[in-house]
Amino acid sequence: MDGSAKPVDMILFRGTVITMNQSRDIFQNAAVVINAGKIDWVGNANDLDGKYTAKEIIDCSGKVVIPGLINVHGHWAMTLFRGLVDDCTLENWLAKIWKVEAEIISPETVVVGAQLGILEMIKSGTTCAADMYWYYPETTETARTAGFRIVNGPSFADIQGFEEYWNTNDQIAVDYLDTYQDVPLVHCCIQAHSAYTTNPSILESVAKIYHDRNLLFITHASESKGELELVQLKYDQRPIEVLDSFGLLGSRTLLAHCVHLSDEEIARLAETNTSVAHCPSSNLKLSSGIARVSDMVKQGVNVGVGTDGAASNNDLDLFHEAQLAALVQKGVTGDPRVLPAEKVFSMLTIDGAQALGLSDCIGSIEKGKMADIAIIDFDAANLVPCYDYYSHLIYATSPADVSDVMVHGRMLMKARRMLTLNEDKVKAKVKEIEYQVRKI
Amino acid sequence: MDGSAKPVDMILFRGTVITMNQSRDIFQNAAVVINAGKIDWVGNANDLDGKYTAKEIIDCSGKVVIPGLINVHGHWAMTLFRGLVDDCTLENWLAKIWKVEAEIISPETVVVGAQLGILEMIKSGTTCAADMYWYYPETTETARTAGFRIVNGPSFADIQGFEEYWNTNDQIAVDYLDTYQDVPLVHCCIQAHSAYTTNPSILESVAKIYHDRNLLFITHASESKGELELVQLKYDQRPIEVLDSFGLLGSRTLLAHCVHLSDEEIARLAETNTSVAHCPSSNLKLSSGIARVSDMVKQGVNVGVGTDGAASNNDLDLFHEAQLAALVQKGVTGDPRVLPAEKVFSMLTIDGAQALGLSDCIGSIEKGKMADIAIIDFDAANLVPCYDYYSHLIYATSPADVSDVMVHGRMLMKARRMLTLNEDKVKAKVKEIEYQVRKI
Repeated sequence: MDGSAKPVDMILFRGTVITMNQSRDIFQNAAVVINAGKIDWVGNANDLDGKYTAKEIIDCSGKVVIPGLINVHGHWAMTLFRGLVDDCTLENWLAKIWKVEAEIISPETVVVGAQLGILEMIKSGTTCAADMYWYYPETTETARTAGFRIVNGPSFADIQGFEEYWNTNDQIAVDYLDTYQDVPLVHCCIQAHSAYTTNPSILESVAKIYHDRNLLFITHASESKGELELVQLKYDQRPIEVLDSFGLLGSRTLLAHCVHLSDEEIARLAETNTSVAHCPSSNLKLSSGIARVSDMVKQGVNVGVGTDGAASNNDLDLFHEAQLAALVQKGVTGDPRVLPAEKVFSMLTIDGAQALGLSDCIGSIEKGKMADIAIIDFDAANLVPCYDYYSHLIYATSPADVSDVMVHGRMLMKARRMLTLNEDKVKAKVKEIEYQVRKI
Repeated sequence: MDGSAKPVDMILFRGTVITMNQSRDIFQNAAVVINAGKIDWVGNANDLDGKYTAKEIIDCSGKVVIPGLINVHGHWAMTLFRGLVDDCTLENWLAKIWKVEAEIISPETVVVGAQLGILEMIKSGTTCAADMYWYYPETTETARTAGFRIVNGPSFADIQGFEEYWNTNDQIAVDYLDTYQDVPLVHCCIQAHSAYTTNPSILESVAKIYHDRNLLFITHASESKGELELVQLKYDQRPIEVLDSFGLLGSRTLLAHCVHLSDEEIARLAETNTSVAHCPSSNLKLSSGIARVSDMVKQGVNVGVGTDGAASNNDLDLFHEAQLAALVQKGVTGDPRVLPAEKVFSMLTIDGAQALGLSDCIGSIEKGKMADIAIIDFDAANLVPCYDYYSHLIYATSPADVSDVMVHGRMLMKARRMLTLNEDKVKAKVKEIEYQVRKI
């Protein structure tokens, strides 16, 4: 071994690396050098040339190495209610879900639901996700313990009957934001459920924290026509106008859904650098409508992809979500050229990172970024032949094609085996909760 | 062993059986008794009571046993062109695909492409599929050899420059129909590519065979607006009118796509018991439009689900296709109650069987039907908890959750291992063809 070789933790060796860097470099027969949780070097394997000595070398021949996928919107613990209510009106869906949540949701069940959600996300190549739900400190600890990257923070709402669950106690919020402001894997944000489920005083205090702490802000906006009517009644404005009037648009704002936007609203989101979390499965399944994603992208709005909760999806698979996003936009616009595969893959990775305010840290495989990476087996029957990597990643990859997943340089799944979560134990606990849910 | 016990080939033991029989029975802790390729008995496992002695007993605890899925429309050999042309206009797509087909397609490459397609279909729980492509006798032999159930037959078209490929030689057609009229796993049909790619004399001769031989007829119809214009120019009629005028509608007719139908045309399909092959991925990806499936179903039109070819999908996974069908209809109709999971699952099974004229023989798990069955691992992380089997089958099942697949009582995949096709050999041959395609 050459004495000048730099000791590092790991080298991903001889795979094809989809970097998603600015020039969208794809390296074949490549190497990714990982040290102390970060990417130290990426390039052609032949150029490694004895520069590094690694504790672990992972053979990635025949595999494709991608930035870990980023799920910009979800409610993880709702995996406990996967498939509980389908094929009914939004009113009936909410009535059932709220009733079950009121009886089932506790700090303990939220941990189990979050573990199940994290399991499913890791198994489908996701390395970072935003969550919005009750008992957010418990969810954050669950992610951190599992080695999974989370964007999470206090969620405010004014929902009658749910006061004890939605945390509007500022001290808990302040403690959370203080505790997690510099904890690895945890990225703080401040959230409001939506304009229609909050009130001006909540939005004011959220806006204050948003500006004082320079945080990311996440909220649901313009998801359904019913929401637009409620917001109109409450504020005499449309949801985007309400947020704008409270100073809540901007490059640190992420709006979930945005199904019903006018041309002016799209322009305003572009102008303020506000990002959108597109959740096509949930929007279709609940008949909320079809977001104007290709118009948003054309106007320069940054769009990430979210699964929403499993109660309205019913899976947390971003590959499926991305494919749906691409296909539906082509169908409704009548233009098959909109949202090409490379763009949709950027929505899953670097655009998602931008939506979460993390584009300096994740979303691409580049020197200095966190080693959040998924490895895909491109030898699967559904991925041969291969003429274009982006095409396969969007139109043909299935969750089971993901072989390995690492976050912050730590392997969370190796050859489909979970390393930080005990899958059998989690599923057993889920089945106990399922038993309780069935009795309601 | 009780001397009166009937010796049988196999018992699927202690799974949950989704029968898809007329009363939609679901048996928990069930048994399916299989003998000589057929289902001999299905019911509660405790009622077996020593009535049978089986050569093989398969433990299905924790699994869900479903009728094998039925893919009512595809072009299997086009898996060779998976992801070759994406995100472009239909004209550019056709130009590229036709150029490559002209150079690559031969009896030998069609066999390889069909093998790849069958591999992928078996791995995602499909046991029967219809094909339409050049060299149909070769494709049929490929399916038969692999133990896969196929609906196939002479395909006629009048495409300039493709005369040598599209088989309009009646003697080959007659020989095929004579040869395969009573061969297990093979179900004959007669096909025309479409009204716009044929001419009155072809449609006349197809109609004659259709009526003389009492065969299933398959054709593309009303797929795109461009097609409607071409047919209008050629026949001064709409595609459905053209087919009707040649006597080609009826209970033995299956029309692929039907994206652009008027109310009157939907009524006419219902009145004539004509079936439709719904192919949502392909229709969206090529921006052909969105078929009015929920209207068709409401009016009593029988609808099956097809993947179309992998060059415009880009996978052959019917679970994904069914989910897309359900979600998109809810989104475009604004009614989340349309196409509920149970109905969509019936489109994948018994309705698909009816579309192919095979509802007496496949599509449900009932005594006397062929043992075409898929077994799903419902313990997968993406399938817990489970409150409703149909919901999971449509909204949450992924191809990799399929553990075992049998056709005609013969296991084609056991614990994800292919038994009748050599996956590595097929993929190696595909990669050789990929190399040729890349040079074009």
